[in-house]
Amino acid sequence: MVRINIDDAKKKITAIFKNVGVCEDEAAIIADMLVEADQRGVNSHGILCTARYVRLIREGKMRPNMAVNVIRDNGTVAVWDGNRSSGQILGYRAMEDAMKKAKEHGIGCVCVKGANHFGALAYYAQMAQKAGMIGYVMGTGDSTMAPFGGCEKVIGNNPVAVAAPACKEVSPVLDMAMTVVANGKLTNMRRQGIETIPEGWGLDREGMPTTNMKDYYTVPPMAGYKGWGMAVMVDILAGVLFGGGTGDRAKDVSEGPSLMMVAFDISAFNDPEKYYADVDARIAELKGSKLAKNSKGIFMPGEMEDRKYKATLESGTVEVLPENLKMVNDVAAEMGLEGIKEI
Amino acid sequence: MVRINIDDAKKKITAIFKNVGVCEDEAAIIADMLVEADQRGVNSHGILCTARYVRLIREGKMRPNMAVNVIRDNGTVAVWDGNRSSGQILGYRAMEDAMKKAKEHGIGCVCVKGANHFGALAYYAQMAQKAGMIGYVMGTGDSTMAPFGGCEKVIGNNPVAVAAPACKEVSPVLDMAMTVVANGKLTNMRRQGIETIPEGWGLDREGMPTTNMKDYYTVPPMAGYKGWGMAVMVDILAGVLFGGGTGDRAKDVSEGPSLMMVAFDISAFNDPEKYYADVDARIAELKGSKLAKNSKGIFMPGEMEDRKYKATLESGTVEVLPENLKMVNDVAAEMGLEGIKEI
Repeated sequence: MVRINIDDAKKKITAIFKNVGVCEDEAAIIADMLVEADQRGVNSHGILCTARYVRLIREGKMRPNMAVNVIRDNGTVAVWDGNRSSGQILGYRAMEDAMKKAKEHGIGCVCVKGANHFGALAYYAQMAQKAGMIGYVMGTGDSTMAPFGGCEKVIGNNPVAVAAPACKEVSPVLDMAMTVVANGKLTNMRRQGIETIPEGWGLDREGMPTTNMKDYYTVPPMAGYKGWGMAVMVDILAGVLFGGGTGDRAKDVSEGPSLMMVAFDISAFNDPEKYYADVDARIAELKGSKLAKNSKGIFMPGEMEDRKYKATLESGTVEVLPENLKMVNDVAAEMGLEGIKEI
Repeated sequence: MVRINIDDAKKKITAIFKNVGVCEDEAAIIADMLVEADQRGVNSHGILCTARYVRLIREGKMRPNMAVNVIRDNGTVAVWDGNRSSGQILGYRAMEDAMKKAKEHGIGCVCVKGANHFGALAYYAQMAQKAGMIGYVMGTGDSTMAPFGGCEKVIGNNPVAVAAPACKEVSPVLDMAMTVVANGKLTNMRRQGIETIPEGWGLDREGMPTTNMKDYYTVPPMAGYKGWGMAVMVDILAGVLFGGGTGDRAKDVSEGPSLMMVAFDISAFNDPEKYYADVDARIAELKGSKLAKNSKGIFMPGEMEDRKYKATLESGTVEVLPENLKMVNDVAAEMGLEGIKEI
């Protein structure tokens, strides 16, 4: 790992996106999300994505600036066509609108079709969390997984993220793919030249388990038929329901992935003071329960990522994979821009 | 397994609940849900529950008839105090109200605290499905699971059910506990005198894996930290958010479990004709994809249960565990009522 300055990284990535025609505001939001993913230790969704997004914009598969058609909006529920704008910007704006709707109706739901790769869903769920709401986010992805019992790539890892605010305790954030492991993690490992993958992480072209990086073809669903079942329901809720892309239709070269953003406004459900007291007490109760014999501790969902994130805030720096930094700096160099400095 | 007539079973179970003061309508709904769970092969949530509910009513821990206080209702979101009425009736009425709200606003959300054991969540999600909506249901349960890294029972298996309607294809229904296996399944196995449980299904009092029925104490979360994380978020969404019971507070002797019912009205998101064409096409695409080498087929979530259910409709009969039938008939006999006939 190499260490870089957070502000420097955001500034340089913002400049890269501006160079391909993204406006200042949107370039800064994308840069913020990418660097934040690395700050949380999720390097599969961090600065690694920069080169990919630049390529998509150059190839005309991603609009440099957001253009949305509102297909439906009844005040509580909206459906947008994202016209292949940036997944990050669409997700950001859709969650803003879902929160606005939730403020008025207690719950708000905004769906986006025709998106692009949207990075780590945790970010959008945490937008609600930081505003004192609960965020529930689902997205479709292009095919990386076979059905339970199948061997063909026909369904995405269809991630789900949920974030709820706490007061004294760490606010829990769940961000999980329906696969055993995110495909991006395996791509990172392959890039690092790792030849053997952990047992249970890969299936070959016949759907049989493999630990060989060169034989791995699909990633199995988490928890077998349960992860498969959940992936199907996310496909329907965050895709089919409003005409969004799923499976191969969710690819960069096709209609692109789609998103469903739901925000729950706590004050429609409870006295917020009671909620915060209760959620803190419940987290303390769970974390304070007896440890297993071989335990490394009890962690809330997102707690490890939160620790990493807070440590980066203290130092103002973040560690990234050297090959990912190189990819960003190669793009910058090719544009005649300054790269992110290693420190 | 022993075979019984469906109508006979519903009639006899309805009579049992009427005997402890449940009104005709509500007794019939409870009987319908219990028998339907057995019809879907989910015998952990079927007629097995009859004796337990009778005991709860007699002990004053379950109201024989529904009494609800509406704590909040803004037209889109409602919170009810179920006053320890039947979990089945509360769930049924709450989903009815969530669907009514969804018809008006596109999405409707009804939360119930102070419930009782609510049986198989699939039933409520399928109420929405049968009405041409998508149902998303979550519930808290009393402590059966330890945190990931812990060994103390502090959190329920916190089930989630999602059901979406299809037209030509089988409508998918996911109903899953956040544990590797439902506690009820292990209880059934113990009752049958089974001494060894499958690997990965049980942890002992120190949180170490065991296959010995007498050493098993908690059920591990599905997919490790992912299932644990999802259980935490269900605890918050279907419990803490609106003051509902979680963990030990969700017990029969305490505040009881709680529920969150969400209904999505398809016509707020899409032209229903397009939705049905798309969902059928997507299901056919997934099911028609290439099978793995060792495959038993590709099944949609709930498809196996649906096959069992349809077969019972054709014959008008259903198979149940003999010990579960005996429990029902013992209750009937003790009340001086006729039992369910074995055929």
